[in-house]
Amino acid sequence: MEKVLPNSIKLILASKSRDRKKLFERAQIPIEIIPSDFDEKSIHESNPKELVKKIAIAKAKKVIKKWNDDMGNRNIPAIIIAADTMVLLNGNLIGKAQNKEQAFQILTQLSGKKHELLTGIAIIHSINKQIRTFLDISIVQFQTLTSSEIQRYLDSSDEYIGRAGAYSLYDRASLFIDFVKGSPTNVLGLPMAKLRKELQNFNVII
Amino acid sequence: MEKVLPNSIKLILASKSRDRKKLFERAQIPIEIIPSDFDEKSIHESNPKELVKKIAIAKAKKVIKKWNDDMGNRNIPAIIIAADTMVLLNGNLIGKAQNKEQAFQILTQLSGKKHELLTGIAIIHSINKQIRTFLDISIVQFQTLTSSEIQRYLDSSDEYIGRAGAYSLYDRASLFIDFVKGSPTNVLGLPMAKLRKELQNFNVII
Repeated sequence: MEKVLPNSIKLILASKSRDRKKLFERAQIPIEIIPSDFDEKSIHESNPKELVKKIAIAKAKKVIKKWNDDMGNRNIPAIIIAADTMVLLNGNLIGKAQNKEQAFQILTQLSGKKHELLTGIAIIHSINKQIRTFLDISIVQFQTLTSSEIQRYLDSSDEYIGRAGAYSLYDRASLFIDFVKGSPTNVLGLPMAKLRKELQNFNVII
Repeated sequence: MEKVLPNSIKLILASKSRDRKKLFERAQIPIEIIPSDFDEKSIHESNPKELVKKIAIAKAKKVIKKWNDDMGNRNIPAIIIAADTMVLLNGNLIGKAQNKEQAFQILTQLSGKKHELLTGIAIIHSINKQIRTFLDISIVQFQTLTSSEIQRYLDSSDEYIGRAGAYSLYDRASLFIDFVKGSPTNVLGLPMAKLRKELQNFNVII
């Protein structure tokens, strides 16, 4: 198994999402994780498509600063990848669940309906600041769930925690989702095939 | 984490597919694996939709026989789940790659095109022989790949081995697939949400 990129430049994922990390692991792409710790609420933007892109850019910039402030890394070129994913139901943003009760409310809303997964992605070069941003949208259809099915899901798994829509497509929630239109990896927070293409603009081959 | 089904009946997966096994693991569904070792070539059927269903039924029946022949299991009720997945490109069946050269040919055919993943599923009760069969179809769009991209994929991973279409949606091939229409788990060999619904006909709640 080849574990080194054919190009020597370092890839940094500006995210603490365990799903995004796993996407790189499964694709066998070596990546370093530096969470941005960016406060998403500090950005005010009413258009969701603009909002996710602006948050992604802000996250990437914060991680570039962390990277360049670290004496050991200074002048070492890196490509920072940042993303922000949100769920849209009938055009309305659905926030992340802070607790099991909120997760129950979110899943009750999603039950029997289609929703959109919206991801804004920013890629920035740490030295020359070359930047690309793009958007990906996937549609996810939930089966109709009873209250007890939702409750059982929440009681038998903690996968709702920290996840847009309070579910994880590849885990137990696969039992509820019989239709996706778009990139499945985007539903997990990063459209990997589009990312691969975009990275070619930075001469990065993954 | 609850690891026991609320109903006491045993679920048997009549498959040696590592992807199908993982789907149950990720969904936290306890399942016993008994491969059928059924010779798929023994069934002659020109209609692909009928073919995958007939193969699934034959696999399930073979595993029921194995189950009931085992003295330790006799009279213990079990639900056997069997499936057969095939790739259809422009209506033509694409077989599994027997080696890297065939995998290269298959991926070259899939490059830049949409193909269909067709799964036939059979569920049979080991005692009363209640049976349900169903079909699921997902559409997968591959990005256009260069020969060297395909070669690099095959050289850096063995995930093409034993897989319909010579790729795995959740692994390194996620870098090539930016669009799926249908069930993502069906692309991996078993549409888990439809399976959940069908199992309710056997009073099995997963």
